[in-house]
Amino acid sequence: MHLFYQPNIVLSEPVQLLTEDDSRHAMKTLRLGVGDAIAVTDGHGNRYLAVISSVDSRRCAFRITNTQTTSPRPFSIRICVAPTKNLDRIEWFIEKAVEIGIERISFFFGQHSERRVLKPERLEKIAVAAMKQSLQSFLPKLDEALPFGEMLKTVSEQQRFIAHLPTDESPVNLAKRATVNGTYAVLIGPEGDFSEKEIQQAIAAGFQLVTLGPNRLRTETAALTACQFLNFINA
Amino acid sequence: MHLFYQPNIVLSEPVQLLTEDDSRHAMKTLRLGVGDAIAVTDGHGNRYLAVISSVDSRRCAFRITNTQTTSPRPFSIRICVAPTKNLDRIEWFIEKAVEIGIERISFFFGQHSERRVLKPERLEKIAVAAMKQSLQSFLPKLDEALPFGEMLKTVSEQQRFIAHLPTDESPVNLAKRATVNGTYAVLIGPEGDFSEKEIQQAIAAGFQLVTLGPNRLRTETAALTACQFLNFINA
Repeated sequence: MHLFYQPNIVLSEPVQLLTEDDSRHAMKTLRLGVGDAIAVTDGHGNRYLAVISSVDSRRCAFRITNTQTTSPRPFSIRICVAPTKNLDRIEWFIEKAVEIGIERISFFFGQHSERRVLKPERLEKIAVAAMKQSLQSFLPKLDEALPFGEMLKTVSEQQRFIAHLPTDESPVNLAKRATVNGTYAVLIGPEGDFSEKEIQQAIAAGFQLVTLGPNRLRTETAALTACQFLNFINA
Repeated sequence: MHLFYQPNIVLSEPVQLLTEDDSRHAMKTLRLGVGDAIAVTDGHGNRYLAVISSVDSRRCAFRITNTQTTSPRPFSIRICVAPTKNLDRIEWFIEKAVEIGIERISFFFGQHSERRVLKPERLEKIAVAAMKQSLQSFLPKLDEALPFGEMLKTVSEQQRFIAHLPTDESPVNLAKRATVNGTYAVLIGPEGDFSEKEIQQAIAAGFQLVTLGPNRLRTETAALTACQFLNFINA
């Protein structure tokens, strides 16, 4: 069954509408018709089994027949990452992180960041597509990009980590530091890594230095690896 | 320092040559000259510190000043995956798996595989680039694509797993099944998943059914997640 995304479901309404994108997709690509069964998620943990009640390339209507509510995970993963110079790489990270499971993605511009602009719309589309693809009912929160210092102030997660390139006296692996069922925030630096000043800022804000293994990882690989590790310890 | 790849180092030779690709890169892109220090790996665990002794856009020569040998990891990860319909996705998997650490990647064509052709040259280039990028001294082995049954016969690893989409009575997570310091082989199916016949063939060949988490993952995401999990339990 096809999964659609409609964040604005009002249960009191007898009939709901798919978004314009999903309406076009349902009609032109999937060629769905009146009476066809679909599934719709609101991205807030609810999945609705529904039936298409009218077809329109811009406003497909559906009637909800059944509601399945998923509760949030007992832990939450937030990755705060500097956008990569090559946008494909950060877009790829978003797709993969959403597939494997993440609650929130924040972006920041660091002293060594080459990229200084990040358009949220396209990233949001990628997150929605990945949520549908992996059949999930929660859409992770994507934050607008902020300067490093301002982004730090938005972190309230209890287990805070900053990923650092392996050095001779390497800090401990994230896998060894994080404990289960926590709220996690991990900072991942840009291609040019964090500045010493940023590292000190993070440590002052209660972040622990961790590595993600012995190899030098690209920004987006490090971000996904941190997300994988945190999902893993909670598996 | 720049890391180059030369699989054919003959230590008895007084002077070594970079490959044609690396020679061009060293001269045209990096503009390196005689006397510049470089690092070269043979992809077999050796990293050579060297000095460029002559520059040529096709045959740069270097003299080895120091040899650092890395021993193989106490475990080995082999992922056997069906090439994705969209080649970018499998190429992406290779880049990421090599970055985080993998010993061998095998490809197979399953009953539900849409892609039936896979050119090894480009994949090899991606693996080499990722090895250099992540500053490693071992180049993972990439096998040519084989039909599923023939590929199965090449698996001699002791801990064998076949990743299966989550079902109602889900098999155990890979993270719970695999034990440390093992030799691992994990089978990852095509977009259309394994056929029932292939699953039975694998089970008969000693593979255990495992999941990679609650979400439905794309082929390349599942392949990388398996690789991440196995690196993780050995971290």
